[in-house]
Amino acid sequence: MSSSVASERPASAERSASGEDSLIARYFKPLATDPGAFELGDDAAVLKAHGDDVVVTTDAIVEGVHFLPDDPPDTIARKALRVNLSDLAAKGAAPSGFVLTLALRKAEEAWLKPFAHALGWDAIQFGCPLLGGDTVSTPGPLMISITAFGRVAAGRMVHRSGAKPGDLVVVTGTIGDAALGLNVLQRGGAAAALADDAAAREVLIGRYRVPQPRTALAKAVRDNAHAAMDVSDGLAGDLAKLCAASGVSAVIEAASIPLSAAASGLLARGIVGVEAIVSGGDDYEVLCAIPQAGLEAFKQAAQTAGVAVAVIGQVVEGLSSPRLLDKHGKEIALPRLSYSHF
Amino acid sequence: MSSSVASERPASAERSASGEDSLIARYFKPLATDPGAFELGDDAAVLKAHGDDVVVTTDAIVEGVHFLPDDPPDTIARKALRVNLSDLAAKGAAPSGFVLTLALRKAEEAWLKPFAHALGWDAIQFGCPLLGGDTVSTPGPLMISITAFGRVAAGRMVHRSGAKPGDLVVVTGTIGDAALGLNVLQRGGAAAALADDAAAREVLIGRYRVPQPRTALAKAVRDNAHAAMDVSDGLAGDLAKLCAASGVSAVIEAASIPLSAAASGLLARGIVGVEAIVSGGDDYEVLCAIPQAGLEAFKQAAQTAGVAVAVIGQVVEGLSSPRLLDKHGKEIALPRLSYSHF
Repeated sequence: MSSSVASERPASAERSASGEDSLIARYFKPLATDPGAFELGDDAAVLKAHGDDVVVTTDAIVEGVHFLPDDPPDTIARKALRVNLSDLAAKGAAPSGFVLTLALRKAEEAWLKPFAHALGWDAIQFGCPLLGGDTVSTPGPLMISITAFGRVAAGRMVHRSGAKPGDLVVVTGTIGDAALGLNVLQRGGAAAALADDAAAREVLIGRYRVPQPRTALAKAVRDNAHAAMDVSDGLAGDLAKLCAASGVSAVIEAASIPLSAAASGLLARGIVGVEAIVSGGDDYEVLCAIPQAGLEAFKQAAQTAGVAVAVIGQVVEGLSSPRLLDKHGKEIALPRLSYSHF
Repeated sequence: MSSSVASERPASAERSASGEDSLIARYFKPLATDPGAFELGDDAAVLKAHGDDVVVTTDAIVEGVHFLPDDPPDTIARKALRVNLSDLAAKGAAPSGFVLTLALRKAEEAWLKPFAHALGWDAIQFGCPLLGGDTVSTPGPLMISITAFGRVAAGRMVHRSGAKPGDLVVVTGTIGDAALGLNVLQRGGAAAALADDAAAREVLIGRYRVPQPRTALAKAVRDNAHAAMDVSDGLAGDLAKLCAASGVSAVIEAASIPLSAAASGLLARGIVGVEAIVSGGDDYEVLCAIPQAGLEAFKQAAQTAGVAVAVIGQVVEGLSSPRLLDKHGKEIALPRLSYSHF
């Protein structure tokens, strides 16, 4: 086991001659720009809290489960980091670094190089440098596990559990695209329906492969939301979790759920139903409960950050599952709330 | 993807009915005793630094690579956490918590229960509570990736890179047992040689399956060592890494390397050579460079902690690989320095 992503090649590496340390050092050391990473030359990293709370989140992605075997290495890298950045944003935390566990069948330069390069670009873009990690061999599917760190002022992390009756249910970006992108990649109904629309297919596939963490909204979430989480397992299921943690329920209007042009077109043509849109996974948008008094400030901040936000419903008293209503006020039944691994 | 090890079961779980959240919450929530874990009911945890540096280390173990498919779940759990605790101890850090990524083929109660129970006992024993995690399904081998956190006073983490000529090379415990334990499990030469000695076989297997992190020595390492790391990939290779990071070399006397009675017997009978003992992995002992002036204090602290320590050689000037000498002062050639994954 290698204790750090790029343990220094020992002076005697001529004899061990594995190439592993050398390959990994070459590609990952440039990502370790934080002084606390010690250029990946030690067994551990140092994270400075500077008096803040350190927010810790961990998410893994597995080949064949969270990404497809023929997804390009650069999008796999981005997804692995971004699903964690999405959690930090929803908790109101500014990213400060991450550690990486990479389980590979073999250390191939042709794969590692674009993987590390894309990871490095995202690390710079989101201000989240590599602090350390571990590389292990596996006979099984490729797996990337990332633990990411963020900072918030003491006691200011935004929880799932603070939603109150009367709060507005707000979601960023658009919902359902990633699930439709996966459907396109798997040559499902969406692929056939978009056979003549390569641009729409690309948009949806891009949303599946490369989430857009709402890091730019972290401060606005922290300043205005009573409760927040990121939507990773489907809007309906994740809203149910937020409501359960807060001891409340919610009412959502299907017509208010923000959709991309591609998703909207597929919905209008009856290719996909609203049930699939709200129960598909991989959205990586922020779902939050915002009191009326905070809505304007939140919208302003979102506009400044260039992120679309939409009010989709309201938090109500009660402990039942959130209800999804059609334009006639009739409840839409949801057969499958969200993705579950087992 | 589940964002936390035990996201609360949504109120509507009758409909998702996966059992995953419920199983995991049942077994892992009791381990989340730190207030910053929010009982695993949120998407992230909060780590308080209290003005210290947070030391971060990450190590993964994979079925068939770091443990055997028929190893008991309780020893797998212990090994997964302890390999990380071993890193923290060698860096001079007191454990403060960990996050867990568990990649499972299926969520089986018969496996999860003893796994979580043993993990919980170790979390208590070493003062290192579960802060959060992620559970994912995989069609491949079982894999456990842990990121562990410790604390040291600002700037006091012990590095690989501080060894100076004249320092003594010191190692804790005994070396080579774990590799011999693996050899016994794989029915190699050690198994045959110990056919009539069930007790010795058990000792060696135990050393392979359940490392003993030297947490009790963390303060002594911090107070007395110029450089330190844990021995995970074989003594010879790890010493080479420490020397390379420090820009020094070392001379080790084979006869000074501390051996268990079982290893010593196998060596005396010619069943195993010293080369295998110093290049086998999984020792999880602390290797450090201690100045003459600090040796007595370190030995005292070790005695108080009940941990054996041995001086095995000296740091010398130079950039060549550390040399291993036999009792006649003749160099022993090492064909394979340490374990490499690729």
